[in-house]
Amino acid sequence: MRADNTRGFASDNNSGVHPDILKAVSDANTGHVVAYGDDRYTRAALIRFEATFGKDIDVFFVYNGTAANVLGLKSATRSFNSIVCAETAHINVDECAAPEKFCGCKLLPVPTKDGKLRVADIEKHLHGFGFEHHAQPKAISITQPTELGTLYTHAEIKAIVDLAREHDLIVHMDGARISNAAAALNSDLKKCTRDLGIDLLSFGGTKNGMMFGEAIVFFNRALSANFKYTRKQSMQLNSKMRYISAQFEAYMSNALWEKNARHANDMARLLKQGIDDIPRVRITQKVETNGIFAIIPAQYVQELQKAFFFYVWDESTSEVRWMTSFDTQPEDIKTFVQLLKNKLT
Amino acid sequence: MRADNTRGFASDNNSGVHPDILKAVSDANTGHVVAYGDDRYTRAALIRFEATFGKDIDVFFVYNGTAANVLGLKSATRSFNSIVCAETAHINVDECAAPEKFCGCKLLPVPTKDGKLRVADIEKHLHGFGFEHHAQPKAISITQPTELGTLYTHAEIKAIVDLAREHDLIVHMDGARISNAAAALNSDLKKCTRDLGIDLLSFGGTKNGMMFGEAIVFFNRALSANFKYTRKQSMQLNSKMRYISAQFEAYMSNALWEKNARHANDMARLLKQGIDDIPRVRITQKVETNGIFAIIPAQYVQELQKAFFFYVWDESTSEVRWMTSFDTQPEDIKTFVQLLKNKLT
Amino acid sequence: MRADNTRGFASDNNSGVHPDILKAVSDANTGHVVAYGDDRYTRAALIRFEATFGKDIDVFFVYNGTAANVLGLKSATRSFNSIVCAETAHINVDECAAPEKFCGCKLLPVPTKDGKLRVADIEKHLHGFGFEHHAQPKAISITQPTELGTLYTHAEIKAIVDLAREHDLIVHMDGARISNAAAALNSDLKKCTRDLGIDLLSFGGTKNGMMFGEAIVFFNRALSANFKYTRKQSMQLNSKMRYISAQFEAYMSNALWEKNARHANDMARLLKQGIDDIPRVRITQKVETNGIFAIIPAQYVQELQKAFFFYVWDESTSEVRWMTSFDTQPEDIKTFVQLLKNKLT
Amino acid sequence: MRADNTRGFASDNNSGVHPDILKAVSDANTGHVVAYGDDRYTRAALIRFEATFGKDIDVFFVYNGTAANVLGLKSATRSFNSIVCAETAHINVDECAAPEKFCGCKLLPVPTKDGKLRVADIEKHLHGFGFEHHAQPKAISITQPTELGTLYTHAEIKAIVDLAREHDLIVHMDGARISNAAAALNSDLKKCTRDLGIDLLSFGGTKNGMMFGEAIVFFNRALSANFKYTRKQSMQLNSKMRYISAQFEAYMSNALWEKNARHANDMARLLKQGIDDIPRVRITQKVETNGIFAIIPAQYVQELQKAFFFYVWDESTSEVRWMTSFDTQPEDIKTFVQLLKNKLT
Repeated sequence: MRADNTRGFASDNNSGVHPDILKAVSDANTGHVVAYGDDRYTRAALIRFEATFGKDIDVFFVYNGTAANVLGLKSATRSFNSIVCAETAHINVDECAAPEKFCGCKLLPVPTKDGKLRVADIEKHLHGFGFEHHAQPKAISITQPTELGTLYTHAEIKAIVDLAREHDLIVHMDGARISNAAAALNSDLKKCTRDLGIDLLSFGGTKNGMMFGEAIVFFNRALSANFKYTRKQSMQLNSKMRYISAQFEAYMSNALWEKNARHANDMARLLKQGIDDIPRVRITQKVETNGIFAIIPAQYVQELQKAFFFYVWDESTSEVRWMTSFDTQPEDIKTFVQLLKNKLT
Repeated sequence: MRADNTRGFASDNNSGVHPDILKAVSDANTGHVVAYGDDRYTRAALIRFEATFGKDIDVFFVYNGTAANVLGLKSATRSFNSIVCAETAHINVDECAAPEKFCGCKLLPVPTKDGKLRVADIEKHLHGFGFEHHAQPKAISITQPTELGTLYTHAEIKAIVDLAREHDLIVHMDGARISNAAAALNSDLKKCTRDLGIDLLSFGGTKNGMMFGEAIVFFNRALSANFKYTRKQSMQLNSKMRYISAQFEAYMSNALWEKNARHANDMARLLKQGIDDIPRVRITQKVETNGIFAIIPAQYVQELQKAFFFYVWDESTSEVRWMTSFDTQPEDIKTFVQLLKNKLT
Repeated sequence: MRADNTRGFASDNNSGVHPDILKAVSDANTGHVVAYGDDRYTRAALIRFEATFGKDIDVFFVYNGTAANVLGLKSATRSFNSIVCAETAHINVDECAAPEKFCGCKLLPVPTKDGKLRVADIEKHLHGFGFEHHAQPKAISITQPTELGTLYTHAEIKAIVDLAREHDLIVHMDGARISNAAAALNSDLKKCTRDLGIDLLSFGGTKNGMMFGEAIVFFNRALSANFKYTRKQSMQLNSKMRYISAQFEAYMSNALWEKNARHANDMARLLKQGIDDIPRVRITQKVETNGIFAIIPAQYVQELQKAFFFYVWDESTSEVRWMTSFDTQPEDIKTFVQLLKNKLT
Repeated sequence: MRADNTRGFASDNNSGVHPDILKAVSDANTGHVVAYGDDRYTRAALIRFEATFGKDIDVFFVYNGTAANVLGLKSATRSFNSIVCAETAHINVDECAAPEKFCGCKLLPVPTKDGKLRVADIEKHLHGFGFEHHAQPKAISITQPTELGTLYTHAEIKAIVDLAREHDLIVHMDGARISNAAAALNSDLKKCTRDLGIDLLSFGGTKNGMMFGEAIVFFNRALSANFKYTRKQSMQLNSKMRYISAQFEAYMSNALWEKNARHANDMARLLKQGIDDIPRVRITQKVETNGIFAIIPAQYVQELQKAFFFYVWDESTSEVRWMTSFDTQPEDIKTFVQLLKNKLT
């Protein structure tokens, strides 16, 4: 089996499911419970969310990160609104115009060096308020960590939140990998999100050991009033909900989210250490979480991919992306580094 | 645990996951494979679909039945079209206007006695072709078995397909419980669908022992050309696809779909036999698959629900729905029948 | 010219523009004014609306009746809502699924004998509140006069409004021909609409002597907060607004709306009198405004249409519709009645 | 009256209606004709379009430029597509996210110096074909003249069309002011559009002497097959169509489009000559059609606006826009230039 399912560095989505998650799914598999979320597994999971993020929140499970992002943003906007995001944001690049289709809104993508929105860049888009010809800015969406593996500091996020408050905008966080951020910042999930003033969070676990399912966590409950209808109408209400809920319950118990994320981050750092002295590998972004972006000579890409599959991020510069995940093993790193050294030195 | 997860007759969605399905999920949980469907589990599942339905089909997995119905219909329509369906159809009653929102189309619901569309009723809606003020009829959606547990004969479906062909309409089948229909008709899945001329099928397994995931099976491949983009944009592309694929692979192997469905149907028949001679229970629809609709005295409903949860279908007449599922046990039936007899005779 | 532009009974949309309206358009044609509505012609028109309907209203001009209906309803709903209307309503039959596409909502069409919604029929649809699988009822749309030319009494409308209030629904009135209703009821525009508790009105004039343009009148200003953005995004903001505004100003001055409507109604009554004693013409609806619905022998339809064009309403019964308009002349009626008598007696 | 309706330089939309257009509207105002476009005025207008653009085209009238742009683009795209345009394009800046809402598509705005898309800039967006995570590029929308008053050469447009053909994209032209372009290029309407390979054109006249109404001209008839339904569903089918048709008939007869456009262009050139030697006015874009963009000292803006209203284009640089129109008079220019000279020298 191993020959076919070799662990590589293509994506944390290529990894499997953590055994504790799988066990939780299996343990939930007994008898009948009411479908669509009115069950004790879901109640238990919601209690876990409150233990993690504090009381007075609303949490809704959907199937995946695209849905969490799109429907979260939809809850905060009307179709005549615009949403500021980094040009590299998942909502801008990787969701096949789902935000435009389902929110109706205009995205205002901001070019960045490192995936991070900055106040001055956002401000350029904050005009035309009250002018009906202009899509009305209403939300800022930030990704933590960014698509480039970099981290906002708490202060940077707070500055964005302050800007948003000034202009009556809401702040959404795409937290598909928020666990990796929290672990890297030696913080906790609440400090990284709610305490900074974020209005709503796409809370993902699939890239960190879960099977499927993502949570939309509303810290600003004014946004969630009708969300149950939006979720159902948007084809995102799971019938056998217990199998998502049991996963989240396990994911947020015993600090599994943190253990997995910390491991993945560590593996990325290990990889970075291994390649730092290979002159023909030039790392292009700070390695702060579980991804490494690097420029390597184009002629070696295909051969390397055969051994350990990964993606080319930018063909024009031969920049590649290497992702580690909860199940990456030190020996994977060692073998890969050796391979790189053999080829590139 | 049993005290909380008692098996009841509320919904086949309240049941758990068949052990063979869970084992398949677990077996797939090794190493890395490419995300989003380019993996050997998905390829194996697609081969299984071809073995079941024949070659020259396109199959796409989505998360649930609502998505399969809505996106399937979207692939066959433009926003200015209309879709004929039974008034009781899931797309009309239970999907919170998702078809209207995502297809843009008008539903043309047809009142029926038994959940079954008939040619004469459909014909009333087939006018106004070419008249731009009128939403243009383009699809007929039938549910097999119906929401009322009844079955179309093959001839009845063929007549609808013939009508559709005459008017250049496509025929969609909501097959959330198609396995129950095929088992009840002593037919196979292909004979029940493709061989009758259906253009596309929502093929469900969740109500019959799967955990999540539904397949859209395009027999008419002209409809699927751009479907991969529609799926992604509609927030229905699963990242760790192998966990849906492995389920379908198991579901369609060793006739698991049929075994489960036949069992559920048998249990419904057993229940029917048990209550046929209770005079204060009046069965309102033919018991042809795994659901029983019956009118019972309203004053007993709540007490009965406490022992075995089920739903009231029509409060005005005190009509209730009892669903059996793959895991219903003969002793569940026996106990429930005894309870009904105690209360109602 | 007359040979080509013969006045007939097909539609009040086939008529031209009243000379007073055309003069107002021409008078407005001088120099420059700010585009998009910030001009004195528009201000004057809005003052006229306040004089007619009272203070504390919001009025927005759009291009046509479909836009007034769809965008008005959109202002009162979210995509997961449903809207109750008569099966014959323009929004259900004649707008090519525009409400479904642009509101996202489900229409709940109610069969009627005479185009009029009744409380008991509406009530059947008012269930499932709070149940996320069910599109949430939010609006009732009534047409005054109905598409069949019949009239609601004030009491009938009040009863519908009361029902709406009980369930927190809003009431929209499609008033494409509200002038004909007000004239027929010897009422005024405010008494026919705002005083009955209507939340918002599609106020039309095109069928009664205007060239183009329709007003959405919000009596419930909670619904109009963001409407200017909705109008612009929905492609309904006219640049040279003065040419709509000047029309409305003229239409609502000197009781032109009433004079025109009363005349059209009178002409319909004259036609009715002329045909009452033709035995092979059977009038099917009360003649209360400016339309007559009648069943005539099918074999004469085409020949009659050649002389005076009109539409067949229901081919299966040979029911036709004859509309009169502000410019119908008594001699048109006389000639047409004579023709009918010659053919049908 | 003149005191209130003073001609200024704010917008060609602030101007009125050319007398020939108003006369055509008035002349059409006789008797009854079939509504919605099946009338002789509309037929005459369509013949005029064929005389102008050649045979084998499809032409649809809608109410305004936003609708022409949005619905034209909708006819060429599916919701999972993307559309490349200049960052300054009307569809990107001035339509309140209507393209996103109604097409569902992503806009890909390209920064430019002068409002003109260039092949190299477009190419950066032409990737990800076949990759379902990425909105699929399908259309390029160019504006001629641009929003900055500049002109594409025929060769520049041809190069864009060639690029589009290579990638199976369609090319849309926003021709709200195409008459000004054709006049400035000493070309004709067909040479400026169809002959360059444009697939479809938003053909506007309102900014050049018409009252309302815009035409979508399909040179690529594969795109127009279902357009009549799209137009109706999109609330853009005018009932008394003759009043749009008669305007277009007049606009395209006796070269009225050209006469008006040439005059407006001439007036802009005259204004440019007048201000060229005012040192504190810095013209920022080539003056090629009927608009002038200039930076002037901020402290004089308000006072100047009081005499002749105009808009500030960019507050941060105190760049203003002065538009001329068909009815601008040489004395307006003279007075305005004198005023500028008095203030700024």
